[in-house]
Amino acid sequence: MIQRILETILYCRDLDEAERFYAGTLGLRRVSDARPRGLTFRVSPDAVLILFNPDLTPLPHPDVPAHGAPGHGHVGFGVEAGSLERWRRRLEEAGCPIEREVRWPTGARSLYVRDPERHSVELIDGDPWPA
Amino acid sequence: MIQRILETILYCRDLDEAERFYAGTLGLRRVSDARPRGLTFRVSPDAVLILFNPDLTPLPHPDVPAHGAPGHGHVGFGVEAGSLERWRRRLEEAGCPIEREVRWPTGARSLYVRDPERHSVELIDGDPWPA
Repeated sequence: MIQRILETILYCRDLDEAERFYAGTLGLRRVSDARPRGLTFRVSPDAVLILFNPDLTPLPHPDVPAHGAPGHGHVGFGVEAGSLERWRRRLEEAGCPIEREVRWPTGARSLYVRDPERHSVELIDGDPWPA
Repeated sequence: MIQRILETILYCRDLDEAERFYAGTLGLRRVSDARPRGLTFRVSPDAVLILFNPDLTPLPHPDVPAHGAPGHGHVGFGVEAGSLERWRRRLEEAGCPIEREVRWPTGARSLYVRDPERHSVELIDGDPWPA
C-alpha cells in the first residue's frame, strides 16, 4: 500500500531566489541544503518539498537516478482554514500578485501566484477533490 | 500557515498508459477523470497526485493558470513499513525493473522505478529527511 506522497519536486535554477520565496514568503522550514543541487523543506510530518536544479539532476549521480523537468510546474498547498484573506495580503505585500482566484464546487477556495521560477503555486483552503 | 502539500503534479502525455501504472501497478485510487487534460488519484486523506497532459495545460484556460513541465520528473511515495520486498516482487512481476536501491543514513530505504513516461518514481520505507 502506498500511504502518502512523501517527496514532491519542483525544478528551480535559482535556488537562492527560490528559498526567499518558499521560506521567506510562504514560511516553509528548510531542513536540508544541498546547493547547488537542491533544497528540501518540511511541509508537514508526512511530506517534504524538494527544489532541484534542473541543470544538475539530469547528470549521472553515484546514488540516485537522473531526472529533470524544466518548465513551469504546479503545486498546491493546503492552508489553514479561513486564512486565505491573510494570505492575499501577505502575498501582495511580498510583491506576489494573485494571478487567479477560484471557488470550487466543494466550497474549497484557491489563490494562485507565481514563484520566482514562474511555477504556478496554489494555496487552497479546503479540498476540491473527492475523498 | 501552510499545513500540507495537497496537490502534487506529474506531466504525462499518455494518460491511459499512465493510469495502468499508477492505478494498476501502484494501486492508487483514481478520483477524477478529466481526460484528455488530466487524471487525479487520491493518495492519502491529505494529498492527491494529478497527472496532467503537458500539451494541454500550457494553453489558456478559462479558470486556472497555464503551466507545464515536460521532461522526466520525480516523485517519492511513502509505503507501508516493511513492505519493500513485496513491492520489489510486485514491480518486477509488472515488468518494472528496479533502477536503483538506496539505504539512507536514517535507516529509510528506497526503491526507484520508471513510470511509462520515464518519470523517476521512488517508493520509500521510512523517512530520509529531518523532521
